[in-house]
Amino acid sequence: MHTLRFFFLFLFFSISKSLTAQNDEQPLNIIVIFADDLGYGDLSSFGHPTIQTPNLDQMVVEGQKWTQFYVGASVCTPSRAALLTGRLPVRSGMSSDNYRVLFPDSHHGLPSNEITLAEQLKKANYTTACIGKWHLGHQKEYLPLQHGFDYYFGIPYSNDMDAPQSVLEEKGGYWGLITDPKNNQIENFQVPLIHNNTVIERPANQHTITRRYSEETIRFIKNNKDQPFFIYLAHNLPHVPLFASKEALGKSARGLYGDVVEEIDQGIGTILKALKEEGLDKNTLVVFTSDNGPWTVFKEQGGSAGPLFAGKGTTWEGGMRVPTVFWAPGKIAPGIVNQIGSTLDLFHTFSTIAGVPLPKDRTLDSHDLGPLLFEKQKASRDHFLYYRGTQLYAARLGAYKAHFITQGEYGQFGDKKTHDPPLLYNLNHDPSEQFNIAETHPEVLKNIESLVTEHKKNMVPGPDQLKDRGVK
Amino acid sequence: MHTLRFFFLFLFFSISKSLTAQNDEQPLNIIVIFADDLGYGDLSSFGHPTIQTPNLDQMVVEGQKWTQFYVGASVCTPSRAALLTGRLPVRSGMSSDNYRVLFPDSHHGLPSNEITLAEQLKKANYTTACIGKWHLGHQKEYLPLQHGFDYYFGIPYSNDMDAPQSVLEEKGGYWGLITDPKNNQIENFQVPLIHNNTVIERPANQHTITRRYSEETIRFIKNNKDQPFFIYLAHNLPHVPLFASKEALGKSARGLYGDVVEEIDQGIGTILKALKEEGLDKNTLVVFTSDNGPWTVFKEQGGSAGPLFAGKGTTWEGGMRVPTVFWAPGKIAPGIVNQIGSTLDLFHTFSTIAGVPLPKDRTLDSHDLGPLLFEKQKASRDHFLYYRGTQLYAARLGAYKAHFITQGEYGQFGDKKTHDPPLLYNLNHDPSEQFNIAETHPEVLKNIESLVTEHKKNMVPGPDQLKDRGVK
Repeated sequence: MHTLRFFFLFLFFSISKSLTAQNDEQPLNIIVIFADDLGYGDLSSFGHPTIQTPNLDQMVVEGQKWTQFYVGASVCTPSRAALLTGRLPVRSGMSSDNYRVLFPDSHHGLPSNEITLAEQLKKANYTTACIGKWHLGHQKEYLPLQHGFDYYFGIPYSNDMDAPQSVLEEKGGYWGLITDPKNNQIENFQVPLIHNNTVIERPANQHTITRRYSEETIRFIKNNKDQPFFIYLAHNLPHVPLFASKEALGKSARGLYGDVVEEIDQGIGTILKALKEEGLDKNTLVVFTSDNGPWTVFKEQGGSAGPLFAGKGTTWEGGMRVPTVFWAPGKIAPGIVNQIGSTLDLFHTFSTIAGVPLPKDRTLDSHDLGPLLFEKQKASRDHFLYYRGTQLYAARLGAYKAHFITQGEYGQFGDKKTHDPPLLYNLNHDPSEQFNIAETHPEVLKNIESLVTEHKKNMVPGPDQLKDRGVK
Repeated sequence: MHTLRFFFLFLFFSISKSLTAQNDEQPLNIIVIFADDLGYGDLSSFGHPTIQTPNLDQMVVEGQKWTQFYVGASVCTPSRAALLTGRLPVRSGMSSDNYRVLFPDSHHGLPSNEITLAEQLKKANYTTACIGKWHLGHQKEYLPLQHGFDYYFGIPYSNDMDAPQSVLEEKGGYWGLITDPKNNQIENFQVPLIHNNTVIERPANQHTITRRYSEETIRFIKNNKDQPFFIYLAHNLPHVPLFASKEALGKSARGLYGDVVEEIDQGIGTILKALKEEGLDKNTLVVFTSDNGPWTVFKEQGGSAGPLFAGKGTTWEGGMRVPTVFWAPGKIAPGIVNQIGSTLDLFHTFSTIAGVPLPKDRTLDSHDLGPLLFEKQKASRDHFLYYRGTQLYAARLGAYKAHFITQGEYGQFGDKKTHDPPLLYNLNHDPSEQFNIAETHPEVLKNIESLVTEHKKNMVPGPDQLKDRGVK
């Protein structure tokens, strides 16, 4: 048994070695594809009955499908801060109890003393691109080029923002505008498209934006293939309002929402094809995930959390568990992984891949997923902490999740409620969080309380970056 | 374009032809694997986060995953009658408003004048086996051997039946017995195991029964490989009470329910392996599906409907839509099919495969799925009718489903309620049946009403076979 195991390990490293050698020992290129408001259940390989995502499904077959992968927050701004810094967003002040995200009249953004994935990877000579939605500060000082990215092409905040006052008045305010798909016209959302630090289009043509993001990604790959690259491709869809290109429109059985998701998937197909054409497919890690759960309040315009309860904005699983795939043929052993992982972990994982030491002057909330990705070993992460704003609402340890506070969003899924004793669910047995087992598992609650006590010893919230808004 | 299409058609038929020729033009062998109470969301390839079904997942990759596939009824007995006869069970009297299924004290079973799949395929010289749960009458005259099967090995009704009176009294009746997993001991369920027409074991050892069904299937394949065979492998699990073998117990992250499902999946792996070893994998169609949705009232002991609403016993999607895979490498073009199909259609489909004409003396509710399975054409079924007992509760036409009556099960999902106008859902856009669109789609309701009127013209319920129970 042991002999056989060592044989396979040997075989695996031999293959890895030979593939790396082929590429002159250059560290893995890294592409993170981040969808916006895509739910856990919105890919065919994650169980959607009518959305067809053949390219992502193929990545699932060739790579690792992670079924218990979390974002650092259940809304845009803090979730993105978590991914790029490897720190719970409350530490950087990017998660606030005043506003949940940044707005076009927000004053601040991600503080310059935070170290982003781009800055970290540049230490290993990576070229870096941010393509897509930023949402970490739209003032110049906060834009991607000022946070370690060599290149930026995208919109600075959400695609539902910047409605002209006249449009808002005519349509009955934000909710009137956004809930009726007939209002999905680009003129109603004066979102700027930025190239590096310059606005090049306003309103951004959202019909073509998904395709253009994929094309920009391919262009960047082709222009930068001689040194390692890191591309953060953050699609701004399927966040409402939904837009698809002429080519994608009406193609999905799922309707407009499906058209949008399928266009993202098609773009991924073109990116993978380009990697193959450039001979980079054996030396590139592609990670696909989403920034939070589906925005269910928008009904057919919102996505599906599949078997999970609730969606965006909540600390239920539907809000924070996202469909995730790691793909690197020949490097990552294919399979389904049901251990706990998080976008927070990309910082540590990519640092190891690039051979860059972790910063020692700050607390990270990032675990190295490498052993699980590359060596089929157990991951180091055995817990997850669910924050809303600056408050810890829930904590998971192993299979068990305790909710200290629950709160819905926009009247869905219940008002804010404190639970003492906490609600307790076995997520491995009960992914839909239906069967509270607190009463019969006091020892589990005790362990989770210890985890939380330990965690809080080391929690220093950063100054709130989201609170200042309006005319300066 | 046309030239290319013809080329592919030519290529496809050439391959089919050559593969058939290899096997002396013998018609396809057919294996139907039918799980019991397995929910739509209980396979990893249908989105379950912690149940691992690698063999079924591989079938999904190599075959067709059907995402909108229905059973003829949402409980055991009528669902099985539907599959085996290709007729809505109300026509054979196997769906009743008195009792929902047959019990150990039921007098009757599937009438002898019904034509089963086994009888139909015997006309083309198939050898036929029923392995597993029957539940279409346990008196000898109704057992599989009297319904066209050459071989039978299995239990005659559900695995939760036949509790001794003393056990029921001690455990607080059926619900007390069945809701506590600690009572999952084979002595508490005196279910007989039958070989052909003879009881060979009582109580059936349910710990080993799943593995034995798979072994019996392989034995039958090896003994009957020289002529076409039809095997109906109807596992009696994961219906409660849950039992797994020593080898499977404690293996799944999902707990006991996962152990049980994963043991069924492992058995499928051994069956596919045996087909390959016998050189039959290129000439055998394997269909996997379930008899109805998950029995959600049993909490962690019940399954998951994934994104679908409700479960077993209801006419919501969670009750009647089941995870389905068609596998026949080289014959079936791989892909995901989101057109409507049903276990009712197996009768017509298999008849075409075997070259046996359909009976002309009765109404069938069966459509030929062959064009979609083998030629990537559109299926002929554009609708589905959801019966509970003898009443039509809902009807689907294209993407739209109208509920005329809804009713939960055991206090879950609401009491019986008539809807006028009906509830209307677009199932392609809204698989979870959340957003009633009746008000804005009167023309759709009209079309569905026409479908129902037409259907009812030709509906003659058979005499109720379920109503007679007790000491004769």
